[in-house]
Amino acid sequence: MKPLDIVIFGGVGDLSLRKLLPALYYATRDGHVPADSRILCVSRTKYEHKDFLDLVKSKLQEFLTGVFDNKVWQQFKTHLIYKDIDLGDTASWQKLIKFLGLPEDRSAEFGREVVYYLSVPPTLFQPVCEQIAAHKLNPPYSRLVVEKPLGEDLASAKAVNDVLASTFKEEQIYRIDHYLGKEAVQNLFALRFSNRLIEATWNRDHIESVEITVAESVGVEGRAEYLDRAGVLRDMVQSHLLQLVCCIAMDTPLSLDADDIRDEKVRILKALAPMTAANVAEHVVRGQYSGGVIEGKKVPSYLSEIMNSGKELEGTGETYVALKMKINNDRWHGVPFYVRTGKRLPSRYAQIIVRFKPVLRNLYATEQHNTLTIDVQPNLGISLDMFMKQLMSEEANLISHRQQMDLGTSYSADMMLDCAGERRLPSAYEKLLIDVIKGNQTYFVRNDEIFAAWKWIDGVRKAWTEAELPMQTYTAGGKGPNAAEKLIENSAHKWTEVKGGT
Amino acid sequence: MKPLDIVIFGGVGDLSLRKLLPALYYATRDGHVPADSRILCVSRTKYEHKDFLDLVKSKLQEFLTGVFDNKVWQQFKTHLIYKDIDLGDTASWQKLIKFLGLPEDRSAEFGREVVYYLSVPPTLFQPVCEQIAAHKLNPPYSRLVVEKPLGEDLASAKAVNDVLASTFKEEQIYRIDHYLGKEAVQNLFALRFSNRLIEATWNRDHIESVEITVAESVGVEGRAEYLDRAGVLRDMVQSHLLQLVCCIAMDTPLSLDADDIRDEKVRILKALAPMTAANVAEHVVRGQYSGGVIEGKKVPSYLSEIMNSGKELEGTGETYVALKMKINNDRWHGVPFYVRTGKRLPSRYAQIIVRFKPVLRNLYATEQHNTLTIDVQPNLGISLDMFMKQLMSEEANLISHRQQMDLGTSYSADMMLDCAGERRLPSAYEKLLIDVIKGNQTYFVRNDEIFAAWKWIDGVRKAWTEAELPMQTYTAGGKGPNAAEKLIENSAHKWTEVKGGT
Repeated sequence: MKPLDIVIFGGVGDLSLRKLLPALYYATRDGHVPADSRILCVSRTKYEHKDFLDLVKSKLQEFLTGVFDNKVWQQFKTHLIYKDIDLGDTASWQKLIKFLGLPEDRSAEFGREVVYYLSVPPTLFQPVCEQIAAHKLNPPYSRLVVEKPLGEDLASAKAVNDVLASTFKEEQIYRIDHYLGKEAVQNLFALRFSNRLIEATWNRDHIESVEITVAESVGVEGRAEYLDRAGVLRDMVQSHLLQLVCCIAMDTPLSLDADDIRDEKVRILKALAPMTAANVAEHVVRGQYSGGVIEGKKVPSYLSEIMNSGKELEGTGETYVALKMKINNDRWHGVPFYVRTGKRLPSRYAQIIVRFKPVLRNLYATEQHNTLTIDVQPNLGISLDMFMKQLMSEEANLISHRQQMDLGTSYSADMMLDCAGERRLPSAYEKLLIDVIKGNQTYFVRNDEIFAAWKWIDGVRKAWTEAELPMQTYTAGGKGPNAAEKLIENSAHKWTEVKGGT
Repeated sequence: MKPLDIVIFGGVGDLSLRKLLPALYYATRDGHVPADSRILCVSRTKYEHKDFLDLVKSKLQEFLTGVFDNKVWQQFKTHLIYKDIDLGDTASWQKLIKFLGLPEDRSAEFGREVVYYLSVPPTLFQPVCEQIAAHKLNPPYSRLVVEKPLGEDLASAKAVNDVLASTFKEEQIYRIDHYLGKEAVQNLFALRFSNRLIEATWNRDHIESVEITVAESVGVEGRAEYLDRAGVLRDMVQSHLLQLVCCIAMDTPLSLDADDIRDEKVRILKALAPMTAANVAEHVVRGQYSGGVIEGKKVPSYLSEIMNSGKELEGTGETYVALKMKINNDRWHGVPFYVRTGKRLPSRYAQIIVRFKPVLRNLYATEQHNTLTIDVQPNLGISLDMFMKQLMSEEANLISHRQQMDLGTSYSADMMLDCAGERRLPSAYEKLLIDVIKGNQTYFVRNDEIFAAWKWIDGVRKAWTEAELPMQTYTAGGKGPNAAEKLIENSAHKWTEVKGGT
């Protein structure tokens, strides 16, 4: 592999220090960062090289408590460089140009590759991209990495994309949705496409329903302004939850190539049945939490958090949304996808449950449903519920056997051994940054996915505004609004109980 | 439940002491033997009651080493009675009549039930049945239990059946094939008929092949006369292996009622593609073992065992047979059933392997087959091979994950806990005798099954005689004849390696 220069804008910001540099530390240790590569952290602050290294080292020691390895650090720090750059200042950009040392003829062969990571607010995408374009720092061997939020509706998403596309081609742009970097999600493809038992039954003939839950225990957490404007429908569903829906629902791609996979994901997003003012009340519940207790601690209501945020906000953002979704294609016709996400639920986790239909003719005393459970976070696991009779028991008394499928070398996320035999669960960023280094776009979101997701989300928002869908309340630390239970009881289904509740 | 009288002819014989009485000991402990029931052991030898109890106790202590429980014995021995009976002697039968105490009008209501267990050679079936009939000891509330061999071909099987049927109705006759009493086999029904994932894929569309192996490490073992005449085709395939084929291949029955299940098993036996002189060489391999080494011990060849048996035998019995079977129905068209059994193989075990087809379009580097493995003996287990990617690995590198399905409270047969929390694997006889007590014929072989199995087996024998199918040889302790490998290689398949080989 060619050496590369990874330029992190916002290089000493929280995301960089907490996620990106630890991920690159491990990637270096495991040999994924080519020799002679450089990791350039960029921000406005001035740092001496030594102070910068001290900062990074202390943060690594903090975030890798107990596993920080000085030998790895000695190797990792040889890649690290810091430059203070003022994005509006031409002299600053000259530093970057000099650093990168691209050939005068930018289309000429060059022995290195360049990755730009925009770990900055979206408002800075435009000035950065414009400067990169102005200085022709965007040769074909350069890549751009960005992260959500990428717009707040279809129109703004297109505007953001226009900014990126003005400087980089689609095959150079890596849009991170860190849910796609999670092992359990990536393993969905292997599970679905390499197991005949699963592949053959993965459709409306055999699957009764799909349930996706992304629960958070936190509340507003200093994001009041954004959250109250966007709500979790835009913050969570448009990105993470729709991506999970795609990974579960997509048809088998032509190949595992990035664009073949993304072609199929887009087809799902386009096949989502639109919500309308007439049907939204049957399909969507939104809510805000009232005060309550989480893990023994009293927590305030959403509205009081908003009121005390020091900003002038309307308190109209939803902190919970539950949706009964339909996919208008042959594979999924008639199979409900129940999707919910909320803040101030009893615990933080993400889980997908695929519930199979019972056998055609049930010979046994009780109805059995094979169930595939995919734990996405914080635990990582895939398990399958099968039914057997107990030793020496009568046939009519079946018992459920949960088959945990081992994703690593052990069952529990805490017990996973990484390549070096260290007990840890590699972060989604680690996996995704290695993919960026390798130039593999499979687990990155393509522009048409973003657009299709926003188009559907915009439809939901339009529908609930027109229909004046009520804002439900739910107790912090509880299971969510009662209306969410009713939503799916109408289809004779029940949510799996929210984890961590009492 | 009504109290019952269990009359064991051959009551102090090896089968009775080794299998039947230990099974009844446990059945008593676990409350399956109604109060006031009597277990009458019958044979020609004279025993004082005390001597008989001493014999049974000492044998229980021997066969239940370490778990014999004197408290259970105190309860069990209250059921035990011995009578010496000469089957040809009328006075003897009067003892039995008096013992049973049936009402004068045999069709009248009676507060007890009667079970006859013929633990005697088949040549004695006729005199026993005749006497039972002559003395009208066969009221509707009586049952008869018999065990193989039930004939040596269709004609003799019909003759044996005529003897039984002259005295008992079919619904009173319990034909034991102890493979049907094994937990793994009984669990096949629960596995197949209560799991949508299995039910939906259990057919030619998704299954590539089925392999059934019943391996023995023993040689002739004092059965030279019978074995050399019958061979393992008749001794093993006609009974145990065809029953396993039926349990794997049968359609979902109308219900779990005994006759509904047996209806479906008969349909499979009738659908077995007949062997002919023209095709037998392609579908069958037979062989005899030559001398070799098993578990480090030198063992002689079959022919020298036969020669040294003290009987005048021809040495024409096969000690190994491998068959490529076809089932002529819609579910299994084109799916080979590879079936093999042999003596002097490296170890004793029985195993069924159901190999699924790979996915329709394989996106991965290697071909994956989901595989369901059913360990019938000595280990007991059902496991499913699924494919996943390893933590942090590339998609193309899938790894197999074997999912052991827990049939009891633990994985290994030795570790099974029975109802009383004792570590043991209940014997097939225990399960079957409890079924006899309850009057449940589900796991007993019906007459039409016996006939259909013999009809097909007779066809194989006729075919190999006409075609002069060569008798292969194989080394004792080896994997069987080379010709058996070629048999299935022609279909681009391979046998699973024989267990215990070196």
